[in-house]
Amino acid sequence: MDKKIRVAIFGASGYAGEELLRLLLRHPMAEIVAVTSRKNAGEPVSSVFPRFTGLKLHFVEPDVQKISAICDAAILALPHGLATEYAVPLLEAGVKVFDISADFRLRSTAKYKEYYKVDHPAPQLLSRAVYGLPERYREELKRCDLVACAGCYPTSSILPTAPLLAAKLVKPTNVVVCSCSGVTGAGRKVDLPYIFPECNESLKAYGVVGHRHLPEIEQEMAVAAGVPEMKINFIPHLAPMNRCINSTILLDAEEGCTLEKVGEALEKAYGNEEFIRILPAKRPADTKYVFMTNCCEIGYNFDAHTNKVIITSVIDNLTKGAAGQAIQCMNIRFGIDEGAGLR
Amino acid sequence: MDKKIRVAIFGASGYAGEELLRLLLRHPMAEIVAVTSRKNAGEPVSSVFPRFTGLKLHFVEPDVQKISAICDAAILALPHGLATEYAVPLLEAGVKVFDISADFRLRSTAKYKEYYKVDHPAPQLLSRAVYGLPERYREELKRCDLVACAGCYPTSSILPTAPLLAAKLVKPTNVVVCSCSGVTGAGRKVDLPYIFPECNESLKAYGVVGHRHLPEIEQEMAVAAGVPEMKINFIPHLAPMNRCINSTILLDAEEGCTLEKVGEALEKAYGNEEFIRILPAKRPADTKYVFMTNCCEIGYNFDAHTNKVIITSVIDNLTKGAAGQAIQCMNIRFGIDEGAGLR
Amino acid sequence: MDKKIRVAIFGASGYAGEELLRLLLRHPMAEIVAVTSRKNAGEPVSSVFPRFTGLKLHFVEPDVQKISAICDAAILALPHGLATEYAVPLLEAGVKVFDISADFRLRSTAKYKEYYKVDHPAPQLLSRAVYGLPERYREELKRCDLVACAGCYPTSSILPTAPLLAAKLVKPTNVVVCSCSGVTGAGRKVDLPYIFPECNESLKAYGVVGHRHLPEIEQEMAVAAGVPEMKINFIPHLAPMNRCINSTILLDAEEGCTLEKVGEALEKAYGNEEFIRILPAKRPADTKYVFMTNCCEIGYNFDAHTNKVIITSVIDNLTKGAAGQAIQCMNIRFGIDEGAGLR
Amino acid sequence: MDKKIRVAIFGASGYAGEELLRLLLRHPMAEIVAVTSRKNAGEPVSSVFPRFTGLKLHFVEPDVQKISAICDAAILALPHGLATEYAVPLLEAGVKVFDISADFRLRSTAKYKEYYKVDHPAPQLLSRAVYGLPERYREELKRCDLVACAGCYPTSSILPTAPLLAAKLVKPTNVVVCSCSGVTGAGRKVDLPYIFPECNESLKAYGVVGHRHLPEIEQEMAVAAGVPEMKINFIPHLAPMNRCINSTILLDAEEGCTLEKVGEALEKAYGNEEFIRILPAKRPADTKYVFMTNCCEIGYNFDAHTNKVIITSVIDNLTKGAAGQAIQCMNIRFGIDEGAGLR
Repeated sequence: MDKKIRVAIFGASGYAGEELLRLLLRHPMAEIVAVTSRKNAGEPVSSVFPRFTGLKLHFVEPDVQKISAICDAAILALPHGLATEYAVPLLEAGVKVFDISADFRLRSTAKYKEYYKVDHPAPQLLSRAVYGLPERYREELKRCDLVACAGCYPTSSILPTAPLLAAKLVKPTNVVVCSCSGVTGAGRKVDLPYIFPECNESLKAYGVVGHRHLPEIEQEMAVAAGVPEMKINFIPHLAPMNRCINSTILLDAEEGCTLEKVGEALEKAYGNEEFIRILPAKRPADTKYVFMTNCCEIGYNFDAHTNKVIITSVIDNLTKGAAGQAIQCMNIRFGIDEGAGLR
Repeated sequence: MDKKIRVAIFGASGYAGEELLRLLLRHPMAEIVAVTSRKNAGEPVSSVFPRFTGLKLHFVEPDVQKISAICDAAILALPHGLATEYAVPLLEAGVKVFDISADFRLRSTAKYKEYYKVDHPAPQLLSRAVYGLPERYREELKRCDLVACAGCYPTSSILPTAPLLAAKLVKPTNVVVCSCSGVTGAGRKVDLPYIFPECNESLKAYGVVGHRHLPEIEQEMAVAAGVPEMKINFIPHLAPMNRCINSTILLDAEEGCTLEKVGEALEKAYGNEEFIRILPAKRPADTKYVFMTNCCEIGYNFDAHTNKVIITSVIDNLTKGAAGQAIQCMNIRFGIDEGAGLR
Repeated sequence: MDKKIRVAIFGASGYAGEELLRLLLRHPMAEIVAVTSRKNAGEPVSSVFPRFTGLKLHFVEPDVQKISAICDAAILALPHGLATEYAVPLLEAGVKVFDISADFRLRSTAKYKEYYKVDHPAPQLLSRAVYGLPERYREELKRCDLVACAGCYPTSSILPTAPLLAAKLVKPTNVVVCSCSGVTGAGRKVDLPYIFPECNESLKAYGVVGHRHLPEIEQEMAVAAGVPEMKINFIPHLAPMNRCINSTILLDAEEGCTLEKVGEALEKAYGNEEFIRILPAKRPADTKYVFMTNCCEIGYNFDAHTNKVIITSVIDNLTKGAAGQAIQCMNIRFGIDEGAGLR
Repeated sequence: MDKKIRVAIFGASGYAGEELLRLLLRHPMAEIVAVTSRKNAGEPVSSVFPRFTGLKLHFVEPDVQKISAICDAAILALPHGLATEYAVPLLEAGVKVFDISADFRLRSTAKYKEYYKVDHPAPQLLSRAVYGLPERYREELKRCDLVACAGCYPTSSILPTAPLLAAKLVKPTNVVVCSCSGVTGAGRKVDLPYIFPECNESLKAYGVVGHRHLPEIEQEMAVAAGVPEMKINFIPHLAPMNRCINSTILLDAEEGCTLEKVGEALEKAYGNEEFIRILPAKRPADTKYVFMTNCCEIGYNFDAHTNKVIITSVIDNLTKGAAGQAIQCMNIRFGIDEGAGLR
């Protein structure tokens, strides 16, 4: 590829947008051609994100016609529902779409309706969408036009469990995912629960039953396990930190499963992956080691006393869990160095 | 009771010791008669805890003979093993002993050896010890001489689950306790993993298999369930905050179990407890609401999709999880207002 | 005093209101008879402050006529301007008023207009108001009806400097106050700059020129110095913590000033004060030692190389800087133990 | 330059060493050829810094003879005193030395002795050393062999004040620098004051009189002002965050000084600097906007009421305050793109 990928960011005024800007500005083979925000159109990017003071870049109106004429790729950092409204005309105009929202992640429109409380806005596109988790769908990503980038909690949960489910080392039943996320996971949301004195010295569960990331995790785990359906428990918590997610996952071991076999299955799946780090057996992962990186760090252990495999898996929710992952998918799609802009 | 309880604190130079001082200094019916520290004997308490600057109180050598002559109660904030060394002569001298260490919590000397790697130092005392969890053992606490104060993680796990196990609303198998603790839970330990830049923006599991609080939790859950033994998963995490623990607990529902029945069982068990707060159904607990209090706050939910009861339970690890609990036990033992000094 | 002081809290839905509730609920000689909030009238206090779950107390409309009939004291935790609207009829009804807002702190209506951009709403009351800083105005507080409780930054700045200015150990010129406050200092304000990810890992100055606490500090320093007017620099910063203020203060030494004389002047002024702690010479104050207490901790040093006295002074902004101070003033006014409810 | 700069890092087991690794690993024109640590020689770098798990790099003994044979540049992240022991033979072997310690920053051996309590270990080298602050000494850096990289607090203080002193807009007397640093500023030090529960919710001054960075700041300010000597007040504080420094600086305005002139002087000095960002007038700097970057962000204001210029200046203490600055100096010395590896 001779020329740089021309990238437009739609809905760039939140934390995922800010992270996209941070990463793309130093991406050697991509250039930002448009950054949209209806609310901030006309303003310099630095008015919303003062860390970019000095940068010559302004928010523009999300005019799909104009923007699709000048870009190769569009990354959508928009709320679900709205993402589809932009994806449809962008795809029609031949732009490759990398959607960070949840709109195209669930293959079942029924699940979409159950968890998002509205009919899916463009069911006809679902078959064209590829789930944007490169370490699981790299081949499909190379030739698709619509990427449904994996969610943050799902990325941290699916990556370590998929190879174990696929290898039948663990059972597809009774899976428990207990996650803690930093506060940027809530977006750049101005609401009482997210002000500093409410979050600091606070750790609490939320969405204990029926969190919107649940069906996405269940779907991809079932794919890996080769079963029609899985039902798991996913319990997210808010922790007093800015970024990152830790997911601790309990899996019932199948007969014959050992600590060594778990390690081998993970190594076999991910030993050559640039952005996955398998820890030595028994060492738990630590969010601080993936802070502001595109890595997923995975620890594994075996509890003989209850016959469970215990996984700890950490990512940066804004990088591997959102912006970094979208860029990794984009790099794959455009056939350039997969890690460009992400090291 | 006319006179104040004369209290000696053994091993007061850690965070539990500091919390004991904070609470006892404003206790209307207790007075501190000795505060021991081998390392700091002779120094004012304020040299170790500058917040007590101005307080006329010095650390003394842990001379049991001298101290037992002037105190009614001894609270031991010592490492396990060492606690027994003091408990034996104190009991012989007629002093009531409230031990914050783990020495007398496990009824099985075999478990003690398995988890603490040494023979129990005084097995003959185990039958005299009462488990110091007032809401579960109040009657026994009224007449015992040796109290094995419940650990911090165990307190947060046992309190919400015991009534559900006892009522056969949940199964005694497949219990998962996923906990996050503030850094004071590691004690006032000067070690690399606990310095600020290593803890801040870090959330990680530790002791994933075989944590020392595991057999204690299993023991007390089994007592509640009326079964000889339970095997559970207990996974502690370190979170970037000073105090408090959140325990999220997943329990397999027995047939007929409903959200309402769970709420009723908790209300029945604890509706009159001053230091337990049952939240409205489905609302998760939040550590910040128990910060620096002696309360345990319990949230409960029911996941019909996996047929699990999901509990969230929070305490302040230094108060209800250590110093406050010891004082509550002491108040009970001496027949005074149970909440004295703890409101 | 036989009966308890009957206290009404006006505008109790912010952090100062929460702290008032926390303190008054354990005050042995006061009882809360009304807690107003226009927005939350009719709701239980616990709906706004879940830590009070279980408390039988509801917000009511701020009906002065009704409330003044049942209370002895009113503590106003209202925005400036609005505070006066309530203070006027409460005073007329014979209620003692303790105002946490800034309405009655400045003796000059011109300064009020300069800094608050409106005419003072009740200039006729200014001569009746006493500045609510007990360690400076205890005698006046004993017999006044309207207390203008000192602000948080001013409390931390005025207490340590007043005795030095009064003793002519330091000059009334070229004073620099450099302060850092926790985020509760901004109130329970739901605004982008105060959400967790914006505050965490952030330290920044604000209100560098002309902060509203400046004229209050200047006024009281000038009173202490016995000069008609002082002009100082006061520079507040926001620090990533919940509570407390550190003020570092640089003062030009007068001839003959020494470290010892500074210590003596502070001891003489405050040696008998329950809520002021003078540190040993050269030891800087630390906010964590006053966290959730009513204390002001003061450190002092002398820099011979620039001939400056350097003060470090810390308080908890919500306790000594707001709610605790109001209660201390109230205790004085009603002739009861000054520290009741504050230990 | 065709070949990459071959870099050896001496004393790489602290936070500055970790930051050097982070930056150099992605530097396009430099390669790490040796990383020394006496304590960890033979161990993989990842054993000390788990975030580098997977990296094929081991600590080696600091054998100057061996290492000087294979490197072009040595960056010293060693304690003062020890740095000189390595600098001397490295220079003799023709290696360019970039010293992060304080050994060669002070031009006066008397000052060195006064503040470091020992005789300077190699006074003969002082005249060869250039102060490693690129925006002030770029030309000298291009041709020197020994760079005394500027300290963290000095960088944040000297950069914004030097142009104002040089332009005679402010007086060289009565300068006050009030700084707050994150805890990595104390190094990776395992000591009680630095454990999480002691730092969290704590803000405190330290080194109030005679901090070791004081003579360095005074020296460089005096150079800029063109006066033989300056005496200032520098007051550092520890704040509960990992990285960054905010310095708030008060300067007495010279006659004729205005807000506009201050802005112009800063723009003139730094308008073309890649790593300095002058904020719009009156907007204070915020540490979060330089977190993990090599930028210095400078805000300026004018207080007509006291006739002072008020500067706020923020840097990341580990990047622009240590590792990033060393690399920037190295880039200059080797004639490559100054910002390589730092964007």
